[in-house]
Amino acid sequence: MKIPVALSPLLALGLVLAASPAIAAAARATPTPTPGCPAPDRFADAASSDPVALGWMQGSPPPRDRQIRFADGSTARFPQTRWAFSHWRELLPTVRVARGDDPASRFERAERTDIDALAFVPIGASAPMTWPQSLAANYTDGLLVLHRGRIVYERYAGALTADGQHLAMSVTKSFTGTLTEMLIEEGRLDAAARVDRYLPELTDSGFGDATVRQVLDMTTALDYDENYTSPDSAFITYGKAAGFIVREAGYSGPDTVTDFLRTIGKSGEHGAAFSYRSPNTDVLAWLLQRVTGKRVPQLLEERFWGPLGMEQDASYQIDAAGTPLAAGGLNLGLRDLARFGEVMRQGGRLDGHQVVPEAVVARIRAGGRPGDFAGAGYTTLPGWSYRSQWWVSHDDHGVFMARGVNGQAIYVDPAAEMVVARFGSNPVASNKCLDPTTLPAFRVLAEQLMRTAH
Amino acid sequence: MKIPVALSPLLALGLVLAASPAIAAAARATPTPTPGCPAPDRFADAASSDPVALGWMQGSPPPRDRQIRFADGSTARFPQTRWAFSHWRELLPTVRVARGDDPASRFERAERTDIDALAFVPIGASAPMTWPQSLAANYTDGLLVLHRGRIVYERYAGALTADGQHLAMSVTKSFTGTLTEMLIEEGRLDAAARVDRYLPELTDSGFGDATVRQVLDMTTALDYDENYTSPDSAFITYGKAAGFIVREAGYSGPDTVTDFLRTIGKSGEHGAAFSYRSPNTDVLAWLLQRVTGKRVPQLLEERFWGPLGMEQDASYQIDAAGTPLAAGGLNLGLRDLARFGEVMRQGGRLDGHQVVPEAVVARIRAGGRPGDFAGAGYTTLPGWSYRSQWWVSHDDHGVFMARGVNGQAIYVDPAAEMVVARFGSNPVASNKCLDPTTLPAFRVLAEQLMRTAH
Repeated sequence: MKIPVALSPLLALGLVLAASPAIAAAARATPTPTPGCPAPDRFADAASSDPVALGWMQGSPPPRDRQIRFADGSTARFPQTRWAFSHWRELLPTVRVARGDDPASRFERAERTDIDALAFVPIGASAPMTWPQSLAANYTDGLLVLHRGRIVYERYAGALTADGQHLAMSVTKSFTGTLTEMLIEEGRLDAAARVDRYLPELTDSGFGDATVRQVLDMTTALDYDENYTSPDSAFITYGKAAGFIVREAGYSGPDTVTDFLRTIGKSGEHGAAFSYRSPNTDVLAWLLQRVTGKRVPQLLEERFWGPLGMEQDASYQIDAAGTPLAAGGLNLGLRDLARFGEVMRQGGRLDGHQVVPEAVVARIRAGGRPGDFAGAGYTTLPGWSYRSQWWVSHDDHGVFMARGVNGQAIYVDPAAEMVVARFGSNPVASNKCLDPTTLPAFRVLAEQLMRTAH
Repeated sequence: MKIPVALSPLLALGLVLAASPAIAAAARATPTPTPGCPAPDRFADAASSDPVALGWMQGSPPPRDRQIRFADGSTARFPQTRWAFSHWRELLPTVRVARGDDPASRFERAERTDIDALAFVPIGASAPMTWPQSLAANYTDGLLVLHRGRIVYERYAGALTADGQHLAMSVTKSFTGTLTEMLIEEGRLDAAARVDRYLPELTDSGFGDATVRQVLDMTTALDYDENYTSPDSAFITYGKAAGFIVREAGYSGPDTVTDFLRTIGKSGEHGAAFSYRSPNTDVLAWLLQRVTGKRVPQLLEERFWGPLGMEQDASYQIDAAGTPLAAGGLNLGLRDLARFGEVMRQGGRLDGHQVVPEAVVARIRAGGRPGDFAGAGYTTLPGWSYRSQWWVSHDDHGVFMARGVNGQAIYVDPAAEMVVARFGSNPVASNKCLDPTTLPAFRVLAEQLMRTAH
């Protein structure tokens, strides 16, 4: 077996190289099921579900059985999701996040061929997996690696291209949370104040007596269940209210995100534990709009899209009242996703401009209390915490992440001077099922970059 | 009465100056009704219907009675239209028309103050109207004048700003028609061929035996009535199929634009007379997609948005199958609208690049047969014709126009080296009612620019 030079240190670390066809085939043939996750062969694999090969929305017009529409529920069905996540603005109303008139910033490129030869052992597995296998296992639509701010790796698949856009899902929350921290830093929002000081509309809801900080860190105690699949969960009502889940005929529930927020009650005591509930982020967006008079997309323009030299106007899904879906509605290009990760890696500075106050980045990177997080059941994230809508590892590299279902991620590794931006259309939503083939891959990549840095 | 120096030649030509407050008040107090048009005082005037002052979609969230939604029909109601036409992508799904990575072209500016002091006599009126009065009379959302390619006048009102976008309505058709002429010029589409040579799907429809040229010039004979207001007109079904008119519960009619096109029968003989029917343009878009494999928005990117250095990504409304609404679905910025007019004025060249073949521009400017047009009842357009989705005056200045309902227009005056781009949200749709306060104003403006050119 020929071992690429760049990989030999991996072997010394006990990681098994899986670059030979035989081992690659073995890894594919005997996938390791993750407890609580669907068996890896339950869904068509990445190649078999390729949206271009399947002809979704191709033709003039596409045949009816190759059309994907929000109204008929097909945007929520795999493998149609593989097209839909890269064409969200063609399915639902959106508002522009404008990059403005200035030229886009340009990344330097220093592409590396050794990354595709990496291998790692997935969490809970005994057989190794190659880097390319991990791309397929995660139904990766796009993955970009920055090392010291330069592009060392950039791949697109599925229905995504470099000039296309992808739904960021809950990675959107990390943008919203960072904005919130910036307004706190500027003294325009008091982290210790009760939500109903700013939003009297929520006085009688479960949010009323929570502090801004508790909402920001998702330690609110709410009568709300973030269950993506149970048809009568509060999440489903939330989705219908917000407009990202189809309403049945005669639907008479809440009509907008803010109407839905008012219906959420309290259950327990705020501040006791982390519990991931998307509507917290909608409360943040409401707070931001109340204190600035501007919607989140406009704040993103002023705070990030202009200053970071983003290369594309982004698209932000809104509800029927024009309220941006701040918990999951941002659509953007992969390079722009990476730019946001890079400015966070660099302590809020990019190209000599302090775009995010250093204190904000420091607060986020410091993380929350791991004790608040420990009981939440994230078995793939031992010792992690959640802070200001970011996931913080507290590991020896200082890794922190923005995470969204179906594979959306920003992975910042300060020690390795690395940022990974990923879009995906995994049929499985939960990151618990995606982490095993993701986190060790990114860690091995980081170690490879550190080892070969000069 | 003090007469601005720049205006005195107007008086010499017999045009009455109306810049004094007294005359302005008189013109407002005694508006001239146009036959077949609503009385000018039927609707709230421009100032009273100002969408910003009325607070449409303002607040966090907007109060329910200040919300504008497609689903409840409010996007089709005046004065809500004054906000909706400037925020169309926030109401319905759209696809991006990307400007690409290159820097936008920049207009030189040579702003003139004499334009606001102009006056003219509306068609059919005896009292004069000032230029500013004409802006208000037309519920102008934006108006930009290029003279010799430089911006001499640029105004925004209503809910539109320089970096905003506006629905172009049927001005969209002139983009589609120009693309079609370009493909004909390149030999990829045969103007003399029958439509069903390219689109067998339309063999049994009224379009099947029409030629591409007849569709392009709207001399097809169709069993279809372009009546915007009668609830059972074919236009209403068209709108429901395309998705720009709300479907009633249980709607079971055609589901997409292309499905609707198949239902249109023939009535009479093709080629005998001009009859303005929007679905012709949808057939053009279908033809373009069939011969290029690309949707119209992508063709606009390649042919216009990149080469003309457009400054904004545009947004193009699509139907449920992703088919672009090529008869009226383009949303763009006012300066980009003017750029399209300017390249047509300059024989298809801009900044040294031949963006549109000179032969294409020549064919369009030559116009159609006025005899085909004469019977169509356009009393404000005597001697005009329709060619390749453009309106051609055959006047001494060689004026030609792109025209959309509610006030959308590109007015190209080659003799005056002038282009006017206008967006509006007039409560009255029909240009017949808008021309009286538009065409004489643009003509006076052209004469002023010619007179004072150096």
